[in-house]
Amino acid sequence: MKTKFTLKIFNDPIYGFISIPNQTCFDVIEHPYFQRLRRIKQLGATHLVYPGALNTRFHHALGAMHLMSLAIGVLRSKGHDISEDELNAACLAILLHDIGHGPYSHSLEYLLAEGMNHESISACFMSALNTEMKGKLDIALSIFNGTHPKKFLHQLVSSQLDVDRLDYLKRDSFYTGVSEGVISTDRIISMLQVVDDSLAVEIKGIYSIEKFLIARRLMYWQVYLHKTVISSEKLLINILKRAKYLAGRGVELFASPALRYFLYNNVSVDDFSDGNEGLKQFAKLDDNDIFLSIKVWMDCGDKVLSKLSGNFVNRDLFKIRLQAEAFDEAEVNSLKKKFKESMNLDDDEIGYFVFTGRIANNAYNPKIDRINILLRDGKVVDVTEAADQLNVTALSEPVEKHFLCHPKMSIE
Amino acid sequence: MKTKFTLKIFNDPIYGFISIPNQTCFDVIEHPYFQRLRRIKQLGATHLVYPGALNTRFHHALGAMHLMSLAIGVLRSKGHDISEDELNAACLAILLHDIGHGPYSHSLEYLLAEGMNHESISACFMSALNTEMKGKLDIALSIFNGTHPKKFLHQLVSSQLDVDRLDYLKRDSFYTGVSEGVISTDRIISMLQVVDDSLAVEIKGIYSIEKFLIARRLMYWQVYLHKTVISSEKLLINILKRAKYLAGRGVELFASPALRYFLYNNVSVDDFSDGNEGLKQFAKLDDNDIFLSIKVWMDCGDKVLSKLSGNFVNRDLFKIRLQAEAFDEAEVNSLKKKFKESMNLDDDEIGYFVFTGRIANNAYNPKIDRINILLRDGKVVDVTEAADQLNVTALSEPVEKHFLCHPKMSIE
Amino acid sequence: MKTKFTLKIFNDPIYGFISIPNQTCFDVIEHPYFQRLRRIKQLGATHLVYPGALNTRFHHALGAMHLMSLAIGVLRSKGHDISEDELNAACLAILLHDIGHGPYSHSLEYLLAEGMNHESISACFMSALNTEMKGKLDIALSIFNGTHPKKFLHQLVSSQLDVDRLDYLKRDSFYTGVSEGVISTDRIISMLQVVDDSLAVEIKGIYSIEKFLIARRLMYWQVYLHKTVISSEKLLINILKRAKYLAGRGVELFASPALRYFLYNNVSVDDFSDGNEGLKQFAKLDDNDIFLSIKVWMDCGDKVLSKLSGNFVNRDLFKIRLQAEAFDEAEVNSLKKKFKESMNLDDDEIGYFVFTGRIANNAYNPKIDRINILLRDGKVVDVTEAADQLNVTALSEPVEKHFLCHPKMSIE
Amino acid sequence: MKTKFTLKIFNDPIYGFISIPNQTCFDVIEHPYFQRLRRIKQLGATHLVYPGALNTRFHHALGAMHLMSLAIGVLRSKGHDISEDELNAACLAILLHDIGHGPYSHSLEYLLAEGMNHESISACFMSALNTEMKGKLDIALSIFNGTHPKKFLHQLVSSQLDVDRLDYLKRDSFYTGVSEGVISTDRIISMLQVVDDSLAVEIKGIYSIEKFLIARRLMYWQVYLHKTVISSEKLLINILKRAKYLAGRGVELFASPALRYFLYNNVSVDDFSDGNEGLKQFAKLDDNDIFLSIKVWMDCGDKVLSKLSGNFVNRDLFKIRLQAEAFDEAEVNSLKKKFKESMNLDDDEIGYFVFTGRIANNAYNPKIDRINILLRDGKVVDVTEAADQLNVTALSEPVEKHFLCHPKMSIE
Repeated sequence: MKTKFTLKIFNDPIYGFISIPNQTCFDVIEHPYFQRLRRIKQLGATHLVYPGALNTRFHHALGAMHLMSLAIGVLRSKGHDISEDELNAACLAILLHDIGHGPYSHSLEYLLAEGMNHESISACFMSALNTEMKGKLDIALSIFNGTHPKKFLHQLVSSQLDVDRLDYLKRDSFYTGVSEGVISTDRIISMLQVVDDSLAVEIKGIYSIEKFLIARRLMYWQVYLHKTVISSEKLLINILKRAKYLAGRGVELFASPALRYFLYNNVSVDDFSDGNEGLKQFAKLDDNDIFLSIKVWMDCGDKVLSKLSGNFVNRDLFKIRLQAEAFDEAEVNSLKKKFKESMNLDDDEIGYFVFTGRIANNAYNPKIDRINILLRDGKVVDVTEAADQLNVTALSEPVEKHFLCHPKMSIE
Repeated sequence: MKTKFTLKIFNDPIYGFISIPNQTCFDVIEHPYFQRLRRIKQLGATHLVYPGALNTRFHHALGAMHLMSLAIGVLRSKGHDISEDELNAACLAILLHDIGHGPYSHSLEYLLAEGMNHESISACFMSALNTEMKGKLDIALSIFNGTHPKKFLHQLVSSQLDVDRLDYLKRDSFYTGVSEGVISTDRIISMLQVVDDSLAVEIKGIYSIEKFLIARRLMYWQVYLHKTVISSEKLLINILKRAKYLAGRGVELFASPALRYFLYNNVSVDDFSDGNEGLKQFAKLDDNDIFLSIKVWMDCGDKVLSKLSGNFVNRDLFKIRLQAEAFDEAEVNSLKKKFKESMNLDDDEIGYFVFTGRIANNAYNPKIDRINILLRDGKVVDVTEAADQLNVTALSEPVEKHFLCHPKMSIE
Repeated sequence: MKTKFTLKIFNDPIYGFISIPNQTCFDVIEHPYFQRLRRIKQLGATHLVYPGALNTRFHHALGAMHLMSLAIGVLRSKGHDISEDELNAACLAILLHDIGHGPYSHSLEYLLAEGMNHESISACFMSALNTEMKGKLDIALSIFNGTHPKKFLHQLVSSQLDVDRLDYLKRDSFYTGVSEGVISTDRIISMLQVVDDSLAVEIKGIYSIEKFLIARRLMYWQVYLHKTVISSEKLLINILKRAKYLAGRGVELFASPALRYFLYNNVSVDDFSDGNEGLKQFAKLDDNDIFLSIKVWMDCGDKVLSKLSGNFVNRDLFKIRLQAEAFDEAEVNSLKKKFKESMNLDDDEIGYFVFTGRIANNAYNPKIDRINILLRDGKVVDVTEAADQLNVTALSEPVEKHFLCHPKMSIE
Repeated sequence: MKTKFTLKIFNDPIYGFISIPNQTCFDVIEHPYFQRLRRIKQLGATHLVYPGALNTRFHHALGAMHLMSLAIGVLRSKGHDISEDELNAACLAILLHDIGHGPYSHSLEYLLAEGMNHESISACFMSALNTEMKGKLDIALSIFNGTHPKKFLHQLVSSQLDVDRLDYLKRDSFYTGVSEGVISTDRIISMLQVVDDSLAVEIKGIYSIEKFLIARRLMYWQVYLHKTVISSEKLLINILKRAKYLAGRGVELFASPALRYFLYNNVSVDDFSDGNEGLKQFAKLDDNDIFLSIKVWMDCGDKVLSKLSGNFVNRDLFKIRLQAEAFDEAEVNSLKKKFKESMNLDDDEIGYFVFTGRIANNAYNPKIDRINILLRDGKVVDVTEAADQLNVTALSEPVEKHFLCHPKMSIE
């Protein structure tokens, strides 16, 4: 017999090793569309708060693929029939689930036409890749879109307990050093079941599910919705909005050709069809395009753009206050007035520096989606019913907060 | 008494927390010169091989400062007199030890005048910062330069067993996922002593020192000198050499203003004095400038630059072979001939694609430097004498290898 | 200066190293009373469920001492005045806090006179040690008893957030492999404060406190009150009760001399005064005495003792059912009847094999004790008020369960 | 389809979870012979030096079984044919490999007839179990004994790179907290191959093998042959020798019935055949029998046994010196004379307190056994040839040391 050597293996500080399960996955990973994810940080500007948070969407996609193959291995060992083609397709589906993400999370969406988001762009990328790969992604796409007969495969890709969440919680927790988010992916996956074509978790794993829901909530407040993180993201969005505004007025700004395309054109979903310019240009964008341009804009002629860019690059972030109720309009106006004077800004400009908004989170939404728990007697109940230890219902109430941002400075 | 709140704390996945020990350290960290290190990866292009290796020089400098304050705490607890000013200065010295590093490790040095390197640039940065901070870095600089009376403080900053090495080995090991490099920094630091103004390690810690030397060697061959890493670095250098060559001939290339300065001028050490343009421009450079330009150069008019850039961006890296002896000249020439034809290159161009070189490593050099071991009877000996378990001498012989790089393609 | 060498250091898989802070601590650790804790498992028979749970009270006491010295270091760095004597005494107090624990947790208390427990026995040990050490434990005892002027030192030893809990949660989590209990002791300790002589936690650490409360609850249900753990503990108690009953009737049983003392005498608190026989004999007992006797009792003449012992040694544990409400008496009686027949037992004997009981837990009891949170404005509030993210109140409601145990066998 | 629930799972702090692969393994684990291993510490008295080292042979056997099933999974995925029966048998073989170990490692062998050791006792246990299980262990025994046609399965059980070593190095490292022994079992296992019916490691894994050899050596010197560990083991052996000597003279000593059997009889290999008394009694022995007896012997009438027992129980261990050459006879005699006088001992007794000996270790013995490395061209070479980075040959030279033990006391 000819010796088969170990397939390509990626080192991963979290799982140790990630093996590529098949040739199609390998080809997708090698494709420039996917390699681009190496240069897109999973957590955008969060590293300004947690300096270790430099993990990429590339590594996350590989990690989620790893968990997918573990999960399918567990389900097969419990007697569920999953063909080799379905295994491969499920791995491809999860590998591609974030392919449409732009640089710095959702910030770039502010440069695009209304209604475009990373989901719709992902769909364009998948379709283009499938054409190029002559239909090899057909099953993967049907799993991704939920049209494949085995619904539970779709749930592994996208549900309250999908391998996407399992990987990103663990990975983000690891890289930020916020140990509260560490979850036992091994344990959860080993407890997976399928009942009536739906994913379920054996009751033995109930504590790990509780821990998962709590970890998710703690990660939201300590990382994803950390107030300094919110402050940096809002700053970034204001920078891009200002640049787009200036570009719209014909002001010449430094930019890479790909970023220039999105600054100086009104790009809509039509531009993203197979072979069209939008997709091609988008595929060339990554975090470097955004950051480098902002760095150069520090020295540009527009006072607003130059100031905002300096704040971002040198981490002179806006102050942010959070509270349960909306901010008093009079207070906000008074702040605006103060900064208009001290910074010598006009009415149009002040909104880039002093502004309010709202953030929300709920760790588990039993209305939209369920986490099925399989009892020993074969019955399936929702986790909120099965968990008598901890008030999981409390976890499912959305928590909402209002924020107010403004520059540091004289008023402190 | 007024309650003193916890000072600024950085989350760190490795040590859990890093506290800023004093206000001057805090001010240095906030300075744009230091913030720049957030955008310079410790390991350059290594993440093309180990996708987790995105850790920055910023985080490393903080980590080394953390170990410094631990080490000084240990030495004080053993009765060695170290003043508060000296503690602060030692922390500052290690914080600043890499301040002159350019993007992608040493690759940028190929754009500078002969003899400039990150050490000389670091000296320029420190001097400029000290001027700006009105002499607050005086003691730190004397420790860094080895002119401070307590030599052992300099050894903590720079020697065979400095906190720089202790942190980077552990950090690089953590982020690459190459667990072989994990070292017990806690144990080593707890065993530190000072004898006759020199750092020493108590004999009880001998196994940890052996482990440290071995770990360092394994990290060299598995990470720092990994053949694919070498291949990517050589590719990067060739790209920058080609760009510099083209710039010298007046060809117009995309670049950020800061990178443009180094491409289109012959910058020498004089340009880096306090207040001069070189330092200012260098302070604006980071990994983004290099990578984004290379990405844009993929579409430039020069065939060589365009091809090399594509190889780098899409990770189509050169094949590399390693061997103990130099490569046979006839073999290299035959390879060159083959690729000249298949790629339609001329004599000047082929050297960017097919080339040879040499790499070397020795984990411990007892000729240059020693690791002192303090025996129970008070005598001090070199680690090579104290370690009877493992042939540390074997570790101190340099290992040298020759490499040959060439594109993938038809010949495979 | 004479070189001071590193003091005695214990390896610890959890903190890496534990240093002995002073000579008195060292002397206490060397004392046979304390060395005895090496042979008393922290978690009794839990290793029958979690095979790694072999950690001892000895290691826990060292770990808690380690956290105590860290905590005092943090409080000092924030300007709180704690003398060297107080540091030493606090370390001694926590080192000794569990000195009175008998083998297999509380099971031995069933052999003692009413009202004796590990707290009262600890007091006897401490008093005897202090006499022997000529008053060197005076301050430690006053801290332990809460009579020392600085109340917060007592709170570090015993309160809702003492170093005892911090260490055992982390340690038990580590050895059982139940990762849900891992807590950031570093983070919690770094956030400690003292306000008006009471321990408090800075508001920045609120999420870690929430995590701590949740982790504690999850550890209760997954480990401390795991149903199979409960089942083994109840079995052990029944074994000791039966042996005591037989001894009371003059039946001769195998036992070490120390265990014999407690089996064949009615030992009360008077026997534990300084120099009295009870304390001396108790000081000779550890897990080995209990387990080995049970193993030999497998072959003894009493059917009940022999059967129960076999169940324990060969891990043929009783079935246990948990439910929210009390078990129906008729159901219990019917079970008893069944087993009386199948096992040929009489009315007195069946109660060792079929029995019911009640277990309860509340993670945080705001009525008895508080966890103070120090807000940024200097005000102090209870954690239930400060935590808006998670319904900590839910965590403070006691959860109670009823259990029913019976042998496996024909009825399954 | 009927839902198959997750099989029995053991929590393991090292691998997270260990699943029982099949029913026969489950039955063996439940057997009292195997449950006994729960009460035999892997590292004997090492916990006197490393307090965490309480891990058992039970947990190790489960861990090795886990690695076996991973290894076989990897080999199957590379196209090597291994039947389900062979998988089960290999798991059984490794599960049983240490079944004959007595309490406190090899110390008990001093009570048995010449030539009996844990290997021969293991064979007796396996044979007895196979009889009881009606031949279900046939293939497992043939793999264990090396008579099964596929030799590489035997190598997984017993060779320089077997799963036994892989698990115990990692496990002992984990529990002692000596991080130098941590090895990448994942990586090594993922690189396994079979060539010509022999185990081999793909060249890509060469660094991990080097690390494994180094880790093994460091663990030898830091743990297995740590001088205080040696000192406690020698003390233990002297205690048992003295007890056996006294028993031979008819002195009545406290002991459990099982230990009594070995003290008061001359037990030889014949007593261990199927159904014979020796095996039955041995199967009842564990660490508790030994330790409890020693504790009681502290108060026995024989001065030598009483003194030695006190030293062990209260951790008043003998001083031990190590050196490369043998100790000078005159020096040893002078020491003996000194202690004979100060302790009032006669010529026969002094040898229990002052004695010399020899310990040795070689991490890798290329003469006896090889670690095959599979090169990319399909050739197989020994690791000493393949490893050019580190002088593995140095690792294969045995290191030998002489020791001298004597009580602490007046002479210090």
